[in-house]
Amino acid sequence: MLPQWIIERKRDGHALTDEELSSFIAGYVQGDIPDYQAAALAMAIYFQGMTPAETTALTRIMMQSGETIDTSSIPAPKIDKHSTGGIGDKISIPLAPLVASCGVAVPMIAGRGLGITGGTLDKLESIPGYRVNLTTQEFLTTLKSCGCSIIGQTEHLVPADRKLYALRDVTATVPSIPLIVSSIMSKKLAEGIDGLVLDVKCGAGAFMQTRDNARALANALIAVGQSMGKRVTALITSMEQPLGRTVGNALEIKESLDILRGRGPADSTELTLRLSAEMLTLAGLIPNPDAALSLLRHKLETGEALNVFRTMIRLQGGNADIVDNPSLLPSAPVQQPFTAPSSGFVATANAGKIGRAALLLGAGRTKTTDNIYHAAGLSELVKIGERVVTGQPLAILHAATPECIAAALPLIRDAFTIVTTPVTLPPLIMERL
Amino acid sequence: MLPQWIIERKRDGHALTDEELSSFIAGYVQGDIPDYQAAALAMAIYFQGMTPAETTALTRIMMQSGETIDTSSIPAPKIDKHSTGGIGDKISIPLAPLVASCGVAVPMIAGRGLGITGGTLDKLESIPGYRVNLTTQEFLTTLKSCGCSIIGQTEHLVPADRKLYALRDVTATVPSIPLIVSSIMSKKLAEGIDGLVLDVKCGAGAFMQTRDNARALANALIAVGQSMGKRVTALITSMEQPLGRTVGNALEIKESLDILRGRGPADSTELTLRLSAEMLTLAGLIPNPDAALSLLRHKLETGEALNVFRTMIRLQGGNADIVDNPSLLPSAPVQQPFTAPSSGFVATANAGKIGRAALLLGAGRTKTTDNIYHAAGLSELVKIGERVVTGQPLAILHAATPECIAAALPLIRDAFTIVTTPVTLPPLIMERL
Repeated sequence: MLPQWIIERKRDGHALTDEELSSFIAGYVQGDIPDYQAAALAMAIYFQGMTPAETTALTRIMMQSGETIDTSSIPAPKIDKHSTGGIGDKISIPLAPLVASCGVAVPMIAGRGLGITGGTLDKLESIPGYRVNLTTQEFLTTLKSCGCSIIGQTEHLVPADRKLYALRDVTATVPSIPLIVSSIMSKKLAEGIDGLVLDVKCGAGAFMQTRDNARALANALIAVGQSMGKRVTALITSMEQPLGRTVGNALEIKESLDILRGRGPADSTELTLRLSAEMLTLAGLIPNPDAALSLLRHKLETGEALNVFRTMIRLQGGNADIVDNPSLLPSAPVQQPFTAPSSGFVATANAGKIGRAALLLGAGRTKTTDNIYHAAGLSELVKIGERVVTGQPLAILHAATPECIAAALPLIRDAFTIVTTPVTLPPLIMERL
Repeated sequence: MLPQWIIERKRDGHALTDEELSSFIAGYVQGDIPDYQAAALAMAIYFQGMTPAETTALTRIMMQSGETIDTSSIPAPKIDKHSTGGIGDKISIPLAPLVASCGVAVPMIAGRGLGITGGTLDKLESIPGYRVNLTTQEFLTTLKSCGCSIIGQTEHLVPADRKLYALRDVTATVPSIPLIVSSIMSKKLAEGIDGLVLDVKCGAGAFMQTRDNARALANALIAVGQSMGKRVTALITSMEQPLGRTVGNALEIKESLDILRGRGPADSTELTLRLSAEMLTLAGLIPNPDAALSLLRHKLETGEALNVFRTMIRLQGGNADIVDNPSLLPSAPVQQPFTAPSSGFVATANAGKIGRAALLLGAGRTKTTDNIYHAAGLSELVKIGERVVTGQPLAILHAATPECIAAALPLIRDAFTIVTTPVTLPPLIMERL
C-alpha cells in the first residue's frame, strides 16, 4: 500500500482502515513517508473528515507510536488540563502549580505555537534555562517533588504527534476535528492521567469560531477520552478577545506571575480558578467545582502556588529568580503604544487579528524551523467593555525592530473597534459539558 | 502574506489573487516555500478548484517562473502534441519524427511518470545514452537538424512545474483540472509553438474517467491556449485499456519502433496517425486531417520517419543502433506470462489496474526520488475483443525480481475479464473539439 494510495482513498472520502492508518503513521515517524505526503493527507482529512472509529484508531496509533509514561508510583490523583488554544492563553502556567499546591499531581505535556495561537512550551522557554525536554525519569522526579511538571513531548513520547503538530501549523490543516482530537488525546493519554479537563475555545481567535463547532470538538474529545476509560470534563470558553492583558511569550510569563500572586487580570484569573476547580473535582478532592474556589484562592494568597512554580522552574533548570524579579525575562528593544483613535467603549479586540499581529511581531512561527522571538508581543491590552479616551494606549507592541511593528500595525488597527455606547461583556465561560 | 495564509484562503474556497499566486510560486521555486506547503496547497486546490481567470494566471506565472524558448529562427510551423497521460501511451515517440518528416517542426518538452501513467522522458531514457536534459541551444540545434527534439524541462524552463509535477505524483493531487491545465500549458507555451494538438484521455486508466470530465479538461486547456493566442485542437480518446501491446519504458520504445516501421499494433498506430494528421492541419500544410493520412503512411513506408528518429536519438546522445537492434535496450531478468484462466473474449483489460501493476513491477515511481527500472513492465498484452483460449498468455510480465512479479499479479488478475460472447470494441477516438 503506497502512501499516495492511502492519501487518495481519504481524498475520495473513504474511511481509512486501522492497517492503513498504522502503516502511514509508522512510515511518517520512521521518515520513510516525507512531510509532503503527510501534509497532503492532513489536507484531505481536513476536507473529508474521519468517522468516530477512525479518530479513536488514529489517536491510539499515535499514542502507541512511542513510549507511554507510567505514573503508578505517584499516589496522588493525576489530572491534567488541556486548552484547544487561544490568543493570550497562558492559563496552564499558573494553573499547574496552583492545582499541585492542593495535592493533585499535574503531569502536563504541552505544545508549541500552532497557527496563530501561542504554545505553553514557547512561553516557558522565555524563562532563561527552563528545559522543556526532560527525560521521562526527570519528568517523574519533578512531578514527585513539586506536584507538577510541564514539558514537551520527548523524542520517545508520541513522536507521530510531535511531527504532525509542527507540520499542521504551517500547512493550514490545524482546524480539523479528527486531527485536533487525535493530537490532543494521544499526548494526554500517554501521560498516564486519571482524568482530564478540557478548555475548548470558541470565537474569533479559536479554531472553532461557532458554539456548534466548539461543542462538536468537545464532544469528540470526550468520546475518545471516555472510550479509553478516563474521566473527562469540558468547558467551552470565549475566545473573541485575547485572554488577559498580554500576548507573547515572556509577556505572558509576567502575567502568569501576577495571576499566581492573586493580582492578575480578572478574566485570566477567573479562568485559572474555574479550570483548577474542575480538576480538583475530577480528582475527587472536593465534591463540586464551586466548593473548590475558596481553597484555590487561599493557595494564591498564601503564596503556596507561587512556591510550587518557583520549585518547578528550578527543577527544570530555569532561573527561578524571574519569579521575584520579572525584569530578568527577555524584553524587547522596541516598545510602542497603539493609541485609541477616538473615545468610547471597546466593542471588539479581535483575538484572531491580534494573534496574527503577534505572529508578525515575532512571537510565533511561520515555518517549523523558525525561531520565536520570546520578548515580542503585546501588553496592557484593553478589554471589551472598557472605557477609553482618544490617545490612550489600547496596547503596547513589543518587537525586535520597528519594521516588525510596522508590519503588525494594520492588523492591530483592524482588531479594535470603539463605540460610543456602553458594551455588554460576553460571558467568559459559555458552557460546561 | 505567509504561505500558510494563502493555503488557508484556498482551503476556504477563495480565488487567489495574481499576487498571492506569484508570491507562492516564486517562493516555491526559490526554495523558501517547502514541498509540504506546496502539497497542502495542491490538495486544497484539488478540493476547491480554481476559476478560469485563476487557472490562466497560474499558467502564466508558472510559464514565467523561468526562461521561455525563442523559436523564431526556425521558419517551419512549430506544432506540438500533448497527451494528458495514459497507460502504454508512447505515441509522442513515433509521432514527433513522423510529423517532422513532413516538414513541421515539433519542439516537444515532455514529462516524467505521473501517477500510474508513464512519462515520455522515462521511456526515452531507456535508450542508452539518450539525454533529455539538453540546453536550450542544443534543443534548438536538434530541432533545426532533424525537425524534432524531445527533452525534459531544463532547470531554467518552467522550474515551477518541474517541482510541482513531481510533487503531485506522490501526493494524490494529480487529477485536478487547474493543476493539470497549468502544468501542461505552462510548458507548452514556453516552447515557442504556433499550435498544439491535445490528446485528452478518458476512461479507467485516465485522470478523467468520464466523458464529461474529459471534455471539461479539454475545454479548459483550449481556453487557456487560445487566451494566449495559440491554435489548439483536442481529441478525446479512450483509455479503458492500455494503448498498444506494451506498458513500461524500454518495452514501449520497442513498440514505437514497430509503429515507425508501419507494423505496430492497430490502435497505437491509428492514434499516432490521427494525431499527426491534426498537427499537419494546424500547421496549414494540409487542408484537413483526413487528407494527411496518406502522406503520413507514406513517410512510415519509406522509412523517412524512422530516419528522423535515428537522427534525433544520435543528436541527443543516444545509441541509435537500438533502432535496428532493439535487443540493445535493457531487458528484464524475470519474464513471466500471465495466462488466461478460461477461453472466450477479452471484455476488460483495465488500464488503471494494469498501470498500478506496472508501478509494482518497477516501471514507475512511488517517491520523487525513486529510480525507474527501465526494463520492467508488460508486453504482448491482449486487447479488448480478442479471442483467447485457456492457458494462452494475456501478457508477459517483466521485472527485476520474482517478488515484483508476485506483487503485481493480483492486480493483473483483476484487470482482465474474459466472457463467452463476442465483445464490441469501444471507439478509440471518442470526440474532436
